[in-house]
Amino acid sequence: MKIKRICIVGLGLIGGSLALALRLAQRTANPHFSLHITIVDTNPETRAAAERLADVVTDDLAVGVQDVELVILATPVRIILSCLQQLPALRPDGCMVMDLGSSKANICQQMDLLPNTFAAIGAHPMAGKETAGFGAATVDMFRKQTFILCRTRRTTPELEAVGLELIEHVGANPLFIPPALHDEMVALISHLPYLVAASLMRTADDIEDDRLWPVSASGFRDTSRVSGTDPKMMLDILMTNREMVLKQVAAYQTWLTAVTALLEAKDEDGLFAWLAETQQAHRNYRNHKE
Amino acid sequence: MKIKRICIVGLGLIGGSLALALRLAQRTANPHFSLHITIVDTNPETRAAAERLADVVTDDLAVGVQDVELVILATPVRIILSCLQQLPALRPDGCMVMDLGSSKANICQQMDLLPNTFAAIGAHPMAGKETAGFGAATVDMFRKQTFILCRTRRTTPELEAVGLELIEHVGANPLFIPPALHDEMVALISHLPYLVAASLMRTADDIEDDRLWPVSASGFRDTSRVSGTDPKMMLDILMTNREMVLKQVAAYQTWLTAVTALLEAKDEDGLFAWLAETQQAHRNYRNHKE
Repeated sequence: MKIKRICIVGLGLIGGSLALALRLAQRTANPHFSLHITIVDTNPETRAAAERLADVVTDDLAVGVQDVELVILATPVRIILSCLQQLPALRPDGCMVMDLGSSKANICQQMDLLPNTFAAIGAHPMAGKETAGFGAATVDMFRKQTFILCRTRRTTPELEAVGLELIEHVGANPLFIPPALHDEMVALISHLPYLVAASLMRTADDIEDDRLWPVSASGFRDTSRVSGTDPKMMLDILMTNREMVLKQVAAYQTWLTAVTALLEAKDEDGLFAWLAETQQAHRNYRNHKE
Repeated sequence: MKIKRICIVGLGLIGGSLALALRLAQRTANPHFSLHITIVDTNPETRAAAERLADVVTDDLAVGVQDVELVILATPVRIILSCLQQLPALRPDGCMVMDLGSSKANICQQMDLLPNTFAAIGAHPMAGKETAGFGAATVDMFRKQTFILCRTRRTTPELEAVGLELIEHVGANPLFIPPALHDEMVALISHLPYLVAASLMRTADDIEDDRLWPVSASGFRDTSRVSGTDPKMMLDILMTNREMVLKQVAAYQTWLTAVTALLEAKDEDGLFAWLAETQQAHRNYRNHKE
């Protein structure tokens, strides 16, 4: 790595998977790859679990960010915003900063305001699962997944190179996107699917007949899966990407209302056309992913 | 098997998987298990593919149902209804009939009207995938899955025993449910998830920016998966379970509107409670499945 000392703030599913992947890269790379990792986490159990992984473990942001070249903020979005506000006082000499938060516009705006002793870039690995926390972290979480980078006014060529190197080490594919477009896309592709799956789960949960669950099969399982997402994490995401999410929910409601109207009207030709166009849309999507 | 000669009408994903599973059961069972299988299918390619599997292959329902003890109707629902209307003339001596259609109330009503020389039972294996047709059929499709049975006025103890034996041979778990309750449950657990996933797919498809697909990850993939379902099959399902589906969509809309209102109002406490209850509902469901 171009840099030797990093601090990861927040050892959850994402921060933890990043730390595991970097340690693996270090073990399998040439002997010149040395990495000193500091972990900041407020949870005592997580800190205990981090001991084997990290060189320094602390619950104090002020301590953790000292003497490192790159601070990686991997907490919920609103804690990232708070850390960004504290950084200028904690590191008057500046440093490199990257975050891994789920929304990007407000974080990148905050990064724009950092003193110019700082270099800062927004990032978002497009991987995850419905289970939160370091216990669910895996070494291959980011492998072959898209790792989004959002440039800010404080992004330097040096930091971009560090970011790309880090992404290569965890086996992901980098993709540069402006912060606002990122937020619109994840509202559609990640936050809307949560609300869609969650509302389905609640509708099913209303039926108090235990025979419902044996009747359910893989279709319900997959369509409802992300409804198991950690509520604290989801609250943070929805509140920090609220307008984009509301816009996508409205677009979604229009589609659902349209197909429901066709069924209500017994419009078989219209309904068949709608279903066939939907299958085609799914095929287009799968073709892009394969 | 208590019976020796069966006819499967419709060698699609479900009928095909049943035929494959029965042939495997025959090969691995004791030598006294002999099964003569007739396949009726209107598709020449499917008939060609069925040659290795079946003793007799025909496109003619009238020919296929002769000299068999059990007719298994595995076509779309409305073709099942048509077959049930034709059977009394084709088999004046009567026979055993089972169907594997996706809705049950109208089929079971039609079975009730069969002459009493017939024994008839509704069935629905709760398994499937978004790919239709015999090419997607697999020998283990029903293994460990719920196989619903719906009694009709024409269900006899002998036919129930045959049905249970067949379900055992394909490795599934039988569950007796009244037809109306079946239709309500599958509307909620299978047909609503389709409309939910399909509307999500259409919303995403509206964004004409190819960067959307690399940004999408497993959450979108799973939540949208069943939107790839065959439109002909889905049209038949939605039209034959229309009222139950519309009722479940309305219930779903109420839940989605409720969570959207909390987000719109920036009601963080209310939203957090909603998200936490949703995660708990997902846990309850998973606990029932594991």
